Amino acid sequence: MNGPPTDSATDPTMPADPTSAVADAGDRDLIRWRLDVRYDGTDFSGWATQRERRTVQGDLELWLGRALSLPEAPRLVCAGRTDAGVHARGQVVHVDLPPAALIDPAALLRRLRRALPTDLAVTAIRRAPAGFDARFGAIWRRYCYRISDANTVPDPLRRRDTTSIPHLLLDVEHLNDAARTLLGLRDFGAFCKRREGATTVRTLLELTGTRGPEERIEITVRADAFCHSMVRCLVGGLVEVGSGRRTVDWLTDLTTAAVRHSEVPLLPARGLTLEEVGYPPDDQLAQRSSASRARRILSPTPTEEAP
Amino acid sequence: MNGPPTDSATDPTMPADPTSAVADAGDRDLIRWRLDVRYDGTDFSGWATQRERRTVQGDLELWLGRALSLPEAPRLVCAGRTDAGVHARGQVVHVDLPPAALIDPAALLRRLRRALPTDLAVTAIRRAPAGFDARFGAIWRRYCYRISDANTVPDPLRRRDTTSIPHLLLDVEHLNDAARTLLGLRDFGAFCKRREGATTVRTLLELTGTRGPEERIEITVRADAFCHSMVRCLVGGLVEVGSGRRTVDWLTDLTTAAVRHSEVPLLPARGLTLEEVGYPPDDQLAQRSSASRARRILSPTPTEEAP
Repeated sequence: MNGPPTDSATDPTMPADPTSAVADAGDRDLIRWRLDVRYDGTDFSGWATQRERRTVQGDLELWLGRALSLPEAPRLVCAGRTDAGVHARGQVVHVDLPPAALIDPAALLRRLRRALPTDLAVTAIRRAPAGFDARFGAIWRRYCYRISDANTVPDPLRRRDTTSIPHLLLDVEHLNDAARTLLGLRDFGAFCKRREGATTVRTLLELTGTRGPEERIEITVRADAFCHSMVRCLVGGLVEVGSGRRTVDWLTDLTTAAVRHSEVPLLPARGLTLEEVGYPPDDQLAQRSSASRARRILSPTPTEEAP
Repeated sequence: MNGPPTDSATDPTMPADPTSAVADAGDRDLIRWRLDVRYDGTDFSGWATQRERRTVQGDLELWLGRALSLPEAPRLVCAGRTDAGVHARGQVVHVDLPPAALIDPAALLRRLRRALPTDLAVTAIRRAPAGFDARFGAIWRRYCYRISDANTVPDPLRRRDTTSIPHLLLDVEHLNDAARTLLGLRDFGAFCKRREGATTVRTLLELTGTRGPEERIEITVRADAFCHSMVRCLVGGLVEVGSGRRTVDWLTDLTTAAVRHSEVPLLPARGLTLEEVGYPPDDQLAQRSSASRARRILSPTPTEEAP
């Protein structure tokens, strides 16, 4: 993260998330809800609210406030703050609402389905278990990066969530050989846009490419958290190796670099989708959330940024 | 159909298809090619060329002519003339080209992939077998109509090829009971926009709804050929029964009506995709094409219109 809320609040691209702290500390009568959210990111300037730009957070807060007839729009906290153009099929959000605002979740779901723009959907609303925090409670995030290469049968109906590289042919087995060398706890500085004072040490839990129907390539990337641009750079590095333009050694050597390496291409946002967020069992939620939040305040350890 | 080529040529929405006849009769030195084509129909005014509108045929003819450096754009003939907003994943097209224009099909495919707009793709190019005619040689067309109802988990990334009816809940088993009664050879006049002098007798080979992943409904419709708006009206009738607003008897009674029945809703084009076209084995192609063409000329029997 990038300093205390008062600093980041001055940066419109990285707003602070004071909601959960406020809810825990003061407004004991607020009730926390969990929302599952999907969007086609093409026409959004990312998740986080920005002045005079259309964002997922901005639209969701607006329509949730209207659907509940709240005097002002509620503040939302999400698990993965996606960049402009990145999609989500498994975004998780929490919101703290006064008990007076509550209506039947099924009715609210129906109301939102009618009200929300067609590129944004809420798929589930439920009361959050005790200690739940969409951001600090998450133990992993899973993304999928979709690629259409020279062997893929192109499908215009899938073009909005797929990156097309028709001039390249990827050897997925070779790509996976390279991917295995990146797993585990390490400094991913070579694959991240660095932020002042933020660590780039993360635990990469899964990194696997497969060829699916019609030779489409899906690269699954799962980690405890991601630093900025990390998925798109990691996949960029894998494409270099899978296409034969670089060797596995080139990729593994990069992991010794502490800052973003200019040889690693940043792939387009369109191919990237947040698929799922993992949380611990309900009885371990409070412990996980407070541990994450404490780490965030006390030392520059991993928290989630736009991947 | 709508009369001989000289008549329909004056109607910009229904251009004539003289190419195949010309190629068979006169230009013996032309070589026929088969192209497999896909498109996201959202931003096209349908298949057939229209003045001052963007159409699939118009774009394809333009870019094919350019890719081959032809003095004028070639004329294309397709298997299923899709309406505005209808998509295709399995459209089949033929084109007759002078031998001088021919280049390596793989190279042409690559060139088209670079040149074509992102909502239009050619997935295969090969020399057509003797007697092949994309339109008159086809023995069936298979369409899929995709629906998101009250039980479907909405997915904004699939909204371009899915019709959303969140206020309805479809009983797919009941819908299929109704669908079975419509199979076979019959007059589908109640489900078609009638054209003067055209028969509405068709053979419906398959009509089945299934709930797929995330409760999305896919209705498969396969017939020898379709009359205008037939798929969207058939599915409209099935939705009436599946949602419980009408009975199976209501639907089967409709088939006695010779003209389009006002009680049958026409569903939106966005949910409809041409998935596949069937042809007989190569050694029966010439026989099939000439039989279809003879029927078209001699009597008003089934040919394909925008379904």
